[in-house]
Amino acid sequence: MSKFDLVIKGGTVVTASDTFKADLGVKNEKVIEIGIDLCTEGAEVVDASGKYVFPGGIDPHTHMDMPFGGTYSSDDFKTGTIAAACGGTTTIVDFAIQQNGKTLKDATDTWREKADGKAVIDYGIHISVTDLNDDILNEMPEIIKQGYSSFKMFMTYDGLRVDDGTIIRTLMKVNESGGLACVHAENYYVIDYLTKKFREEGKGEPIYHALSRPDLAEGEAAGRAIKLAKIANAPLCIVHNSCEASVSEIARARAEGYPIIGETCPQYLLLSEDNYREPDFNGAKYVMSPPLRDKKNWPTMWKALKDNTVQFVATDHCPFFMKQKEMGKEFFAQIPNGAPGVELRMSLMYTYGVAEGKFDLNRFVQVTSTNAAKVYGMYPQKGTIAVGSDADIVVFDPNVEIVATKSMLHENVDYTPYEGFKLKGAPVVTISRGSIVAKDGQFVGKEGAGKFVIRKAPTLI
Amino acid sequence: MSKFDLVIKGGTVVTASDTFKADLGVKNEKVIEIGIDLCTEGAEVVDASGKYVFPGGIDPHTHMDMPFGGTYSSDDFKTGTIAAACGGTTTIVDFAIQQNGKTLKDATDTWREKADGKAVIDYGIHISVTDLNDDILNEMPEIIKQGYSSFKMFMTYDGLRVDDGTIIRTLMKVNESGGLACVHAENYYVIDYLTKKFREEGKGEPIYHALSRPDLAEGEAAGRAIKLAKIANAPLCIVHNSCEASVSEIARARAEGYPIIGETCPQYLLLSEDNYREPDFNGAKYVMSPPLRDKKNWPTMWKALKDNTVQFVATDHCPFFMKQKEMGKEFFAQIPNGAPGVELRMSLMYTYGVAEGKFDLNRFVQVTSTNAAKVYGMYPQKGTIAVGSDADIVVFDPNVEIVATKSMLHENVDYTPYEGFKLKGAPVVTISRGSIVAKDGQFVGKEGAGKFVIRKAPTLI
Amino acid sequence: MSKFDLVIKGGTVVTASDTFKADLGVKNEKVIEIGIDLCTEGAEVVDASGKYVFPGGIDPHTHMDMPFGGTYSSDDFKTGTIAAACGGTTTIVDFAIQQNGKTLKDATDTWREKADGKAVIDYGIHISVTDLNDDILNEMPEIIKQGYSSFKMFMTYDGLRVDDGTIIRTLMKVNESGGLACVHAENYYVIDYLTKKFREEGKGEPIYHALSRPDLAEGEAAGRAIKLAKIANAPLCIVHNSCEASVSEIARARAEGYPIIGETCPQYLLLSEDNYREPDFNGAKYVMSPPLRDKKNWPTMWKALKDNTVQFVATDHCPFFMKQKEMGKEFFAQIPNGAPGVELRMSLMYTYGVAEGKFDLNRFVQVTSTNAAKVYGMYPQKGTIAVGSDADIVVFDPNVEIVATKSMLHENVDYTPYEGFKLKGAPVVTISRGSIVAKDGQFVGKEGAGKFVIRKAPTLI
Amino acid sequence: MSKFDLVIKGGTVVTASDTFKADLGVKNEKVIEIGIDLCTEGAEVVDASGKYVFPGGIDPHTHMDMPFGGTYSSDDFKTGTIAAACGGTTTIVDFAIQQNGKTLKDATDTWREKADGKAVIDYGIHISVTDLNDDILNEMPEIIKQGYSSFKMFMTYDGLRVDDGTIIRTLMKVNESGGLACVHAENYYVIDYLTKKFREEGKGEPIYHALSRPDLAEGEAAGRAIKLAKIANAPLCIVHNSCEASVSEIARARAEGYPIIGETCPQYLLLSEDNYREPDFNGAKYVMSPPLRDKKNWPTMWKALKDNTVQFVATDHCPFFMKQKEMGKEFFAQIPNGAPGVELRMSLMYTYGVAEGKFDLNRFVQVTSTNAAKVYGMYPQKGTIAVGSDADIVVFDPNVEIVATKSMLHENVDYTPYEGFKLKGAPVVTISRGSIVAKDGQFVGKEGAGKFVIRKAPTLI
Repeated sequence: MSKFDLVIKGGTVVTASDTFKADLGVKNEKVIEIGIDLCTEGAEVVDASGKYVFPGGIDPHTHMDMPFGGTYSSDDFKTGTIAAACGGTTTIVDFAIQQNGKTLKDATDTWREKADGKAVIDYGIHISVTDLNDDILNEMPEIIKQGYSSFKMFMTYDGLRVDDGTIIRTLMKVNESGGLACVHAENYYVIDYLTKKFREEGKGEPIYHALSRPDLAEGEAAGRAIKLAKIANAPLCIVHNSCEASVSEIARARAEGYPIIGETCPQYLLLSEDNYREPDFNGAKYVMSPPLRDKKNWPTMWKALKDNTVQFVATDHCPFFMKQKEMGKEFFAQIPNGAPGVELRMSLMYTYGVAEGKFDLNRFVQVTSTNAAKVYGMYPQKGTIAVGSDADIVVFDPNVEIVATKSMLHENVDYTPYEGFKLKGAPVVTISRGSIVAKDGQFVGKEGAGKFVIRKAPTLI
Repeated sequence: MSKFDLVIKGGTVVTASDTFKADLGVKNEKVIEIGIDLCTEGAEVVDASGKYVFPGGIDPHTHMDMPFGGTYSSDDFKTGTIAAACGGTTTIVDFAIQQNGKTLKDATDTWREKADGKAVIDYGIHISVTDLNDDILNEMPEIIKQGYSSFKMFMTYDGLRVDDGTIIRTLMKVNESGGLACVHAENYYVIDYLTKKFREEGKGEPIYHALSRPDLAEGEAAGRAIKLAKIANAPLCIVHNSCEASVSEIARARAEGYPIIGETCPQYLLLSEDNYREPDFNGAKYVMSPPLRDKKNWPTMWKALKDNTVQFVATDHCPFFMKQKEMGKEFFAQIPNGAPGVELRMSLMYTYGVAEGKFDLNRFVQVTSTNAAKVYGMYPQKGTIAVGSDADIVVFDPNVEIVATKSMLHENVDYTPYEGFKLKGAPVVTISRGSIVAKDGQFVGKEGAGKFVIRKAPTLI
Repeated sequence: MSKFDLVIKGGTVVTASDTFKADLGVKNEKVIEIGIDLCTEGAEVVDASGKYVFPGGIDPHTHMDMPFGGTYSSDDFKTGTIAAACGGTTTIVDFAIQQNGKTLKDATDTWREKADGKAVIDYGIHISVTDLNDDILNEMPEIIKQGYSSFKMFMTYDGLRVDDGTIIRTLMKVNESGGLACVHAENYYVIDYLTKKFREEGKGEPIYHALSRPDLAEGEAAGRAIKLAKIANAPLCIVHNSCEASVSEIARARAEGYPIIGETCPQYLLLSEDNYREPDFNGAKYVMSPPLRDKKNWPTMWKALKDNTVQFVATDHCPFFMKQKEMGKEFFAQIPNGAPGVELRMSLMYTYGVAEGKFDLNRFVQVTSTNAAKVYGMYPQKGTIAVGSDADIVVFDPNVEIVATKSMLHENVDYTPYEGFKLKGAPVVTISRGSIVAKDGQFVGKEGAGKFVIRKAPTLI
Repeated sequence: MSKFDLVIKGGTVVTASDTFKADLGVKNEKVIEIGIDLCTEGAEVVDASGKYVFPGGIDPHTHMDMPFGGTYSSDDFKTGTIAAACGGTTTIVDFAIQQNGKTLKDATDTWREKADGKAVIDYGIHISVTDLNDDILNEMPEIIKQGYSSFKMFMTYDGLRVDDGTIIRTLMKVNESGGLACVHAENYYVIDYLTKKFREEGKGEPIYHALSRPDLAEGEAAGRAIKLAKIANAPLCIVHNSCEASVSEIARARAEGYPIIGETCPQYLLLSEDNYREPDFNGAKYVMSPPLRDKKNWPTMWKALKDNTVQFVATDHCPFFMKQKEMGKEFFAQIPNGAPGVELRMSLMYTYGVAEGKFDLNRFVQVTSTNAAKVYGMYPQKGTIAVGSDADIVVFDPNVEIVATKSMLHENVDYTPYEGFKLKGAPVVTISRGSIVAKDGQFVGKEGAGKFVIRKAPTLI
């Protein structure tokens, strides 16, 4: 029997804290050796010389095959994870949405059906709590034990949103059961007021999507959720922060010592509300919530990402074909919310983060992989290159220079919001538990090879 | 005809900015001259030598004859304003509560019936908006024109509370119509959750009133209301701030340049949640909302009052006899919320503010009179000693030393929360529009002599 | 004998807190009555109808007849106070500079010789401590008793600057003796380093004056002086703050409750370092220290003035003819530091403060008169319109519209930095202790009519 | 030839970001393999089962054999590094003090003579700049190239202190030459003033050492140095922060995005100014600068260490025998400044940091080793366990429970400030470049085995 199944040779290994030249030896899906001149006898060999060897990307915020406003996001767990794999991501965490009147188990069952046997890389599942009562609270400890350890609540959206009473009860119960509560933070009433106002005024174009959801509405909700978390004496994660208004609330709470976690997405670092003004309904491509913001927020967002006010970068991947977007041709509020992003996350963050000097290689690994693994209870199985960890690895060539365009991507949708963005650096080999799943931007893995990740209690950072 | 109806001689006049020896000459209810050795021929003379001559106190937050939980606050506009007058206060502003389904005019009509012909000093009336719709919004400009220029919203209390949609609509409409929106800031859901929790746990004593309404629940609501005011681009007044959690939100917004106004009350400067632990249901005396807080908040509250984070001191006077309080003998949430305070406000603020060196005489005048007059649109008719202003004046002896006790007070209730408090300084003559209404702590005025004050747009400070 | 010597009729009186229509009756140099329809029999009458009646302006920072770099500032106490009077200012406070090896008394003697019998309005005198030792420390209590109650220290300038040891000793001694210590805050070593560097690099133009004195050098010194004041447990006034770097230090200390006082000047609110780039050595007109700053500081400076981070506006009036300025034609560091300003202060602050809506009339009175009077121990003799105060009054017409130009001014210098500035509002009558000293912009007073003001302990605000 | 010279088997490897079970294989002084079941044939084996395997400690602030006030610190490079090694530290960085009038090379020559051939573990050398001129500035690039890449300036101490001009010049030159400037931040003049005052007042006991050096004097100097660094556009490290006054300045600058680095020491986390009051001149044991502080600073200091306001923990090891301390029996200012600490740092930080739950294992590695290596240009040669790094390793038993006492220590001095402190966790094997130098608290290495570490440019974190 050969010592290793796979050896990654000659690359520069990068972890959340270290950068060094070494080979990696993989056996039975795990890294078992890190060293110089490892024996390759009988092993598959990946030549990583001149390349970086990163922990595989973790995208902790995706919406595959999700019902929204009478349609479904256009990527399912197969197409979506193929795109992820091609982009250097080896784990996603998707959101199972509780239906009104249904249990959490119903939600996870539905989502496991969507994912099991389809996903080509590993996946965890968060739960979106939308309808809380005592039975649901009582269900939480068991569902956490099964590996669904994070619970998001929407503070806005008709039909999904919960009130502060649900938030405080969930914060308390989830925390005492070893899980982590999260929120989508926007003030429902502000949005409702402005949306109705714009409807009356006949303002239906995509730009009004942004104007109906002001940054202070996000800041308000973030601040409120943080106060509730303080009262509940529980940690809290605020997903997809888009602006200074929310990030400043997190910064204030963390400076006081509270365990508040923040996520952001490439679109809030690289795109702006100017995009909504693109002609011919093109602005609809960017309709997502929170909306893209005034670009004056960019420096704050990058700084927050660097100084650990925000800990990781997800995509909120939730694609819709333009045809689907046209449901809102008359009025922005009917446009399905969401956009693709899962495939370009790693290259965008490398290009505009590392290559442009905003942070270093180790911070890149933290924000694209390690921190999400820690916060969402997958570490050290996922999120690092260490002896005993899953061999989820991406070999990344920092010297590739390409221009992003839809035709090179595998996302099942007819556009990318990053069309025309210059990229410096790209994944060349993606390895999931020791198996190569993508090579030079092409999928070479197997449908259904991905496994459900049983997640544990958060490690707060 | 004599030159003056009344001359106040030989006192030290104190205004919001100045302190000087002068006589005051009053004619036709107004101050018409300030000078040295004014002619007293044919005039009533008040000897103020060795005394301070302050603008009459303004208590902008009282609840006379108010329905609450099946009973009524025990002071009506007669007894309550007599108490106020004896304590050196010459104007109150009371809250007319909108009934569900009724108009604002219904509310002001009801309150004018309660007050007109009864009050012994002048009174303004705020409106508590509890049930908003388009008709109510449309009613606002006219009702503001009639002199009801301030609108409070409760963020908590079943039956009274409004949602954020009402707050933002009211902020916008009131502001554009020349009025001022106010909030009682506490998070409903947190209180609801904790109250139910304590009920289940059999925790019914008065101390649980405080524990069910944590300071962060107030801070959350204050922060939220401020964000809504920023979005509405409107000023906002937060009433009865009790703690650092809310005051720090005001401070932050003011530092950013936003017109946020704050009120506090003597009870939050001088009493603490320890009082709830007094035996034999005595703690019920202090059941009010927001509740008394941990005394560690005191220095912050005094500092906020000094540095203009908080602009004035009201009482939230809302007395109930102990017999009424006993409705909540079994469970704190049934105790009528409120306590007396209108009569001691001036002496308490002088004693613990000026005499103890926390601020100077001019700041005393600002926080007890001038600032409330400005914010609530009564200035310069009320709130100062100036030529042309109403002759609402209190002659105050800084050398009196007494101990507060119920028997000396005129409030129609069987206790004072300040029993046993040492007082240094007391009003000796109270003058309402040129007529002496109280002397040496005794009422000498006339029922019904008070007039409704038509209030205008706020002056923000 | 007539009741009044002078009556100012029909104007709108404005104090630090109040605005009301009234006549003022003056007798024996003091205001003795404020009222309606005062008797004018036998009195001189000033018609103020349609005008504002303000407390006379106080400019607490002037340098008349001051030696600097081998020359003298071009206004002496006669020409300078004539200009002040024509501009609506009724009191200046000038700086007596201690000579090395000389006593404080030597300094005050010298300055009294310069001023007595010459000044046309009242004047106080600060002392600039430049050479401290035990004898000087011991001299302080007596000199304070004589009415010289404020002591400035230069943290920069060769020959004038003192070290931190002098600052801490002075802070302590002055405070315990009932005076107030002040500093000119700039870091000597930074300026010295940059000046030498620019000299070596052949960079001699006026713009390098600004570049050699970065805002952070001022912020550093302000922060340092504040720390020393905290250690000494003493109040401190920082004069002529020019930028956010220093103002933010004051704001921080005040938020912590420390008695730190700040002054600014019109030039830091209205001019910018762009002026240094005016061609043909024109930039030399603006060479003063601290220098004019990047205009991005303006909003911060106006906000600080409004929210009482900065309490008053002085001019640092210190004019030099362009011929004198030419001493530094080759190298900016030889340009005499200073510029005129005493005559336009009131109109500039009214125009760009009140008329442009940055603050209200009462704040205008505070920052141009009352607050300086309080801080520098002249209140209530100066700084207000109250019974018993000196009749130092300016009648101000808010409807005048003129354009500032050198030819209309009385300053003894050949330019004004405000050439071409639009002015809305101008003083029409200036009254010093009951005597009219200027009318419609022309001097009508008497040389030597001004008196030395014996100043007392500061009132901190 | 065997594959490895040394194998560390079965331990739990901890790096700055990861924690995993693995063996380490060492060859030619370096870690060359990290894996499971490494081959031990022909290799020395260290059994680490049940133990942590940390990167060897780095103490970046020691003073061996240092002249101070007429005597020398009592540890030389032999005794001091033996103590370090026994305590789990594998690298120190000591300070070569420039003599007045001498070159930097003179200083490094002197220090290399003290260290070379004596030290038992590796050592870097900082330079203390005390006498700057153009020649010294010109010497810097070359001396940095030789591996002396960090330069400290004393802002206090007669004979050592430099002025702000030296600081700004050094900041600029060092930064452009690829080095890092550091300061000992205390305000000289404040200390000088208070010391003289206490001398006059006959206050000579050790407690006056603390009272003569108030925390604000440290905060002032820290704030000043930071401003100078901002002006110089250079990074800065502030050594041995003792209190909130300085740490808050670092926090503010870092929040603004400036590259300011902070160090603290165990004594500021665990001892307090109360120690100075120990009877019988015992307080002299703790005389060091900055002094021990009021213990109310402790929570701030621990929080700063956790949240990366402060990046690492050094000791400022500088021992003197009590006999030496007695030089200051009459007056505290004659007591040699300094105390031992190099041997207990790792155990103290593990016990009071990790075991008490203040931070996790990875943060322990960061603050005791990795971060100092990065900041002082030794990473990745030192400061981590990674393939290719020096095999500087400490095997640490977290289950040992002992009480600190002088007799167990190797420091050449007659006391430890930590006498009686409970310790949970101790180093059991210390390995320097692959050689075991200490075992179970006993030195087993070789005099002179330590090598000079050529340090490079800082990595800012």
